[in-house]
Amino acid sequence: MGNNTAGEVITCKAAVAWGPGQALVMEEILVDPPQKMEVRIKVLFTSICHTDLSAWKGENESQRAYPRIFGHEASGIVESVGEGVTDLKEGDHVVPIFNGECGECEYCRCERTNMCRDYGVNPMKKAMVADGGCRFRTKETGEPIFHFLNTSTFSEFTVVESACVVKVDPGFPLEKMAMLSCGVSTGVGAAWNTADVKAGSTVAIFGLGSVGLAVAAGARARGASKIIGVDINPAKFVKAQELGITDCINPKGLEGEIKRLTGGGGVDYSFECTGNSAVLREAFLSTHLGWGLTVLLGVHPGPKMLPLHPMELFNGQQITGSVFGGFKGKTHIPSFAEDCMRGAVNLEEFISHELPFEKINEAFQLLQGGESLRCLMHL
Amino acid sequence: MGNNTAGEVITCKAAVAWGPGQALVMEEILVDPPQKMEVRIKVLFTSICHTDLSAWKGENESQRAYPRIFGHEASGIVESVGEGVTDLKEGDHVVPIFNGECGECEYCRCERTNMCRDYGVNPMKKAMVADGGCRFRTKETGEPIFHFLNTSTFSEFTVVESACVVKVDPGFPLEKMAMLSCGVSTGVGAAWNTADVKAGSTVAIFGLGSVGLAVAAGARARGASKIIGVDINPAKFVKAQELGITDCINPKGLEGEIKRLTGGGGVDYSFECTGNSAVLREAFLSTHLGWGLTVLLGVHPGPKMLPLHPMELFNGQQITGSVFGGFKGKTHIPSFAEDCMRGAVNLEEFISHELPFEKINEAFQLLQGGESLRCLMHL
Ligand SMILES: NC(=O)c1ccc[n+]([C@@H]2O[C@H](COP(=O)([O-])OP(=O)(O)OC[C@H]3O[C@@H](n4cnc5c(N)ncnc54)[C@H](O)[C@@H]3O)[C@@H](O)[C@H]2O)c1
Ligand SMILES: NC(=O)c1ccc[n+]([C@@H]2O[C@H](COP(=O)([O-])OP(=O)(O)OC[C@H]3O[C@@H](n4cnc5c(N)ncnc54)[C@H](O)[C@@H]3O)[C@@H](O)[C@H]2O)c1
Ligand SMILES: [Zn+2]
Ligand SMILES: [Zn+2]
Ligand SMILES: [Zn+2]
Ligand SMILES: [Zn+2]
Repeated sequence: MGNNTAGEVITCKAAVAWGPGQALVMEEILVDPPQKMEVRIKVLFTSICHTDLSAWKGENESQRAYPRIFGHEASGIVESVGEGVTDLKEGDHVVPIFNGECGECEYCRCERTNMCRDYGVNPMKKAMVADGGCRFRTKETGEPIFHFLNTSTFSEFTVVESACVVKVDPGFPLEKMAMLSCGVSTGVGAAWNTADVKAGSTVAIFGLGSVGLAVAAGARARGASKIIGVDINPAKFVKAQELGITDCINPKGLEGEIKRLTGGGGVDYSFECTGNSAVLREAFLSTHLGWGLTVLLGVHPGPKMLPLHPMELFNGQQITGSVFGGFKGKTHIPSFAEDCMRGAVNLEEFISHELPFEKINEAFQLLQGGESLRCLMHL
Repeated sequence: MGNNTAGEVITCKAAVAWGPGQALVMEEILVDPPQKMEVRIKVLFTSICHTDLSAWKGENESQRAYPRIFGHEASGIVESVGEGVTDLKEGDHVVPIFNGECGECEYCRCERTNMCRDYGVNPMKKAMVADGGCRFRTKETGEPIFHFLNTSTFSEFTVVESACVVKVDPGFPLEKMAMLSCGVSTGVGAAWNTADVKAGSTVAIFGLGSVGLAVAAGARARGASKIIGVDINPAKFVKAQELGITDCINPKGLEGEIKRLTGGGGVDYSFECTGNSAVLREAFLSTHLGWGLTVLLGVHPGPKMLPLHPMELFNGQQITGSVFGGFKGKTHIPSFAEDCMRGAVNLEEFISHELPFEKINEAFQLLQGGESLRCLMHL
């Protein structure tokens, strides 16, 4: 790697999706140089988030597009930058982010949101903003390979718009930094930024994957007095307790259990981290009348509408969505990385498995089977 | 009126509902003395809110109960108080409130909510908390007549739990104070307390009845730069402009119109004041991505769920319900009354008609036909 490849087409390995639920094909692809305001990154570590799993299965038909390179949790080193990129240069240690920050649009200029007009999370986006084209091509025919969630990290090299690249301190271990790319930032940020969990308050978390457990880590760091974890998979309870969950419940006994654990009233905050609509309703109902806040994190791909009656909003219970934990990527993630390195959140806890990149299909099975939190792949 | 009736059963006129949508019957009824923590009020003025109209029609079957005395917007004078009532006495000028404040429950002690455990708004409640009984009886058979929304003001005398009675300055005109009982407080409070409308911001109001126009008055007092009013009844636009609406739209031309009026982005706040679920969706979609807040005020009686997809909460648009404008009745309404008398909101503007109490069925027709804002009835 180095200047010698800048401006050149790179041939490298990538895990290409050719159809819904089909095993990814590890093949050589062509990666074009970064265009205006783009960055080419040598990916060193990548992991799989449930959002990749849903996309790989093709759960949302309107978002299907093949061939495609999935992946959005990663870390790596800048190989070269395109015209106009001034805040990043070759050799920078970086984390790609699926919810970008251009810094200039009306959303980026507003303190109250972490949306970005052109580079915010957009599951329909499959090509670059600059020219509507793809930077990946198949080696055989030169056919374009679609991008995914602004990032496409299941490739040794990827091209990302500079709005979606965050520079981190080169002294920080890159393998841990990958956790900041999505899951941990999303969960911790939901507790810190979206819900603003107060010390002494009570919390319920539905779904104890990386996102849910990162909520737990965030709530613990804020001094929540009780953090109830709900999951259908009891195997999740072991790690859960290490990360701050104080009470584990299997949804089979859920009815009334959360109220009982909170002295009858319900929790101050609940977090939906499963993407299941019935769970979302449970999460809402588990909160305290008057002020309970439900934070929606799970991605709900189906056509199901919010399982709430308008009048249920008259009891003072609130519901709000949270994307990437409410963090503005470029503005906040570098200092969040410092917080983590200082011990606010232990990133290593989220890496339950490690595998070489070649074994990516195995890593998918680990997540789908509920065995892993994040399986870190080495490229 | 006076001490001579304290402790006695009072015989007086009331407008009794005997079945859904049937003309109210103006008849003599018996009103028992107030029990522990109750207050008997001589009602001097009452008006009709859309919530009375919905209840009268019996729109929500589970809430039907007859015979019943509707009405929750009123003002009057305390005739006598029951055991334990210390903050009110005979002769006090008062406004009954449908969303009470006991001052002692966990909600009343919490700053973030205006709910009350036992005396909050509850459309299913039809009797007194003290003994589960009714204070109204028919003169003929002594059969109990059900209470409504903690208040039942369509009667010359009513018995209300003291948590649902607010004392106002006796120097203020009681006919105007009736407006504070529901509609005006609800609308102004939604703008001030729930949405906390900022100066220079943009607002859309769906439904220009008293509630919607009170939102307008509240938003204007806060210095909103644009207040867009939407109603299917163009007759509403005249008064609307007097109360601060800057742009009137008929929903037939709605699509895109609000975005156009706000430079493409949508409003900062929208308020749903119709109780129509399709309108609720329009209200949500009319807000700005990233930070737009939809405040739900309309009462939605049907079984229709929230017309939003969970993923629509991922764009930073918020939705929240507001009851009685977020005001804690006993704590805030006396000073809100002062604000109004000092000119923050002109209560008179909301009294579009006046009629003697006997003509209550006519007053119902005026509201149902979209002709009146509030028709003030003199008892
Ligand atoms: N909002 C965002 O910015 C954002 C970011 C990342 C991920 N996500 C979404 O968050 C969700 C969680 O992601 P993850 O990577 O932690 O997933 P994961 O697969 O690691 O964890 C999901 C957990 O939910 C549990 N679960 C499933 N159904 C359940 C049910 N009915 N009741 C209780 N528990 C149940 C599973 O057993 C599992 O432990 C996914 O929907 C993902 O798409 C959202
Ligand atoms: N949340 C609370 O605390 C609270 C308090 C009072 C009233 N309410 C509710 O607020 C709503 C409004 O009450 P109000 O007394 O002002 O009623 P109202 O009848 O005076 O006004 C309703 C207005 O909505 C308009 N409208 C009806 N359908 C419409 C549509 N499809 N599109 C646009 N406009 C439409 C009508 O023309 C009318 O002008 C009712 O649902 C009432 O039950 C709630
Ligand atoms: Zn993710
Ligand atoms: Zn931006
Ligand atoms: Zn009302
Ligand atoms: Zn109370």
